[in-house]
Amino acid sequence: MLVWDFLSDALRPAWPSADSLRWVHTASAGVDRVAFPELLASDVVLTNSRGVFDVPMAEYVLGLVTAFAKDLPGTLRRQDQRQWEHRETERIGGRTAVVVGSGPIGRAIGRMLTAAGLRVQLTGRIEQTGDPEFDTVHSAAALRGLLPGADYLVLAAPLTDQTRGLIDAAALAAMKPTARLINVSRGPLVVTEDLVAALRDGRLAGAALDVFETEPLPDSSPLWDSPGAIVSPHMSGDVLGWRDELAALFADNLDRYRSGRPLRNVVDKTRGYVTTPSNLGSSA
Amino acid sequence: MLVWDFLSDALRPAWPSADSLRWVHTASAGVDRVAFPELLASDVVLTNSRGVFDVPMAEYVLGLVTAFAKDLPGTLRRQDQRQWEHRETERIGGRTAVVVGSGPIGRAIGRMLTAAGLRVQLTGRIEQTGDPEFDTVHSAAALRGLLPGADYLVLAAPLTDQTRGLIDAAALAAMKPTARLINVSRGPLVVTEDLVAALRDGRLAGAALDVFETEPLPDSSPLWDSPGAIVSPHMSGDVLGWRDELAALFADNLDRYRSGRPLRNVVDKTRGYVTTPSNLGSSA
Repeated sequence: MLVWDFLSDALRPAWPSADSLRWVHTASAGVDRVAFPELLASDVVLTNSRGVFDVPMAEYVLGLVTAFAKDLPGTLRRQDQRQWEHRETERIGGRTAVVVGSGPIGRAIGRMLTAAGLRVQLTGRIEQTGDPEFDTVHSAAALRGLLPGADYLVLAAPLTDQTRGLIDAAALAAMKPTARLINVSRGPLVVTEDLVAALRDGRLAGAALDVFETEPLPDSSPLWDSPGAIVSPHMSGDVLGWRDELAALFADNLDRYRSGRPLRNVVDKTRGYVTTPSNLGSSA
Repeated sequence: MLVWDFLSDALRPAWPSADSLRWVHTASAGVDRVAFPELLASDVVLTNSRGVFDVPMAEYVLGLVTAFAKDLPGTLRRQDQRQWEHRETERIGGRTAVVVGSGPIGRAIGRMLTAAGLRVQLTGRIEQTGDPEFDTVHSAAALRGLLPGADYLVLAAPLTDQTRGLIDAAALAAMKPTARLINVSRGPLVVTEDLVAALRDGRLAGAALDVFETEPLPDSSPLWDSPGAIVSPHMSGDVLGWRDELAALFADNLDRYRSGRPLRNVVDKTRGYVTTPSNLGSSA
């Protein structure tokens, strides 16, 4: 079964009828919608679309970092009022970005921000020393200690039991009031009401959110006009041609399936993401 | 004489009284306001603030390129309407940026865009082969031939008789309708009415302008709401602390002047910019 619409919850109610299902492929990097307990407990193989979104998402995050540093939202809103108001802006060079997620997306983001001159600290599930690109990948437990130094906190981790609600009032309180949060992974990593309160009270300078607990974001959400908020419609990785790349990845996996070769991007069902090394390289 | 306000035209009317003036330093990279004929014909030494703005401006241009590619203006305007509308955006990787200006600012911009994955072509006054960073720096005469391949055309050249009106109707007609213009140098490099017409008719996809023929940009200018225009108030290089850096550079030059050592950033008065190698390195 190919799950093309990654927002669909249709598989779970149909599960009792899926008595001959052997393989589910999702046209997304995150598997949170299809990784329900019955599927996880079964011997159905789950594969995802790891690799398609990496570099597009890294570019998107770079755009958000520079937009915050150079106050592009402030410029555009003044432009709409024909208002000429010079401001001093911030450097991005030398600033610290903490990237949560050491998979291909987090690494692509880290690589791009490093290239633009930021200091990048990556966190994953467990600490890994001697990383060829990032020296030490810090453990999830080390995140709290990194937060006070972050100018940008970028969320690029899968939604799992360990990451749900990761950025709550306590995490936000550990951050500098000048810092910005960028979430391009899944909405539930952030406790929305805690974030809204931090923005409202000026305890966090900004938040760029591409993902939300409920999508589309309801009209009534306070995030739409929270101070310093940039709201986008879950599109960070979706560049022109992305559907073709998703289809090509599935078609390749289908060829592999039919000829009995190993599938790409097999999800470790105990972890909720792919744990084997990437065999896609950076996406085109 | 230190010209602190780079927009000031006060020096020229006072010139007849300046009978003992020996040195003018301007707190800007461009010298177009102080390089009037009487000063150029005199033996007064002119120095500028080359180096202070390079990397901040490169970051700013990177922000504009990503903002265009990822349609950040469209996102912010939809956010103001609480409108959730998914779009497909563009890659920046592999796109071509033509940067006009091979001085420290143009080079810093080229370096930053290269790091972010763009292909960069730099043009200067004359062709230079074997450039350590950009292979060939193309001549001003070669620019027209490069325009059809440009996804982004970035203006970072001084205002001189050779660059005034450089981007006119003919130049714009040579560009792709999907291309964007970014001007962070001086307004008169662009023929405003030709640009307004190109944007209005959809012959150019966008223009980010930080500089204008008249500054502040008059309320009546059609640029404020031209399709695809981003208007900012001459601030691309002005990061927090920039005044301190400008003051430190002048103070260092003053020390040099008083002790008879060579001044930094002496402007070649026949060219209108500094032609000696940079001795500032990249700015902090």
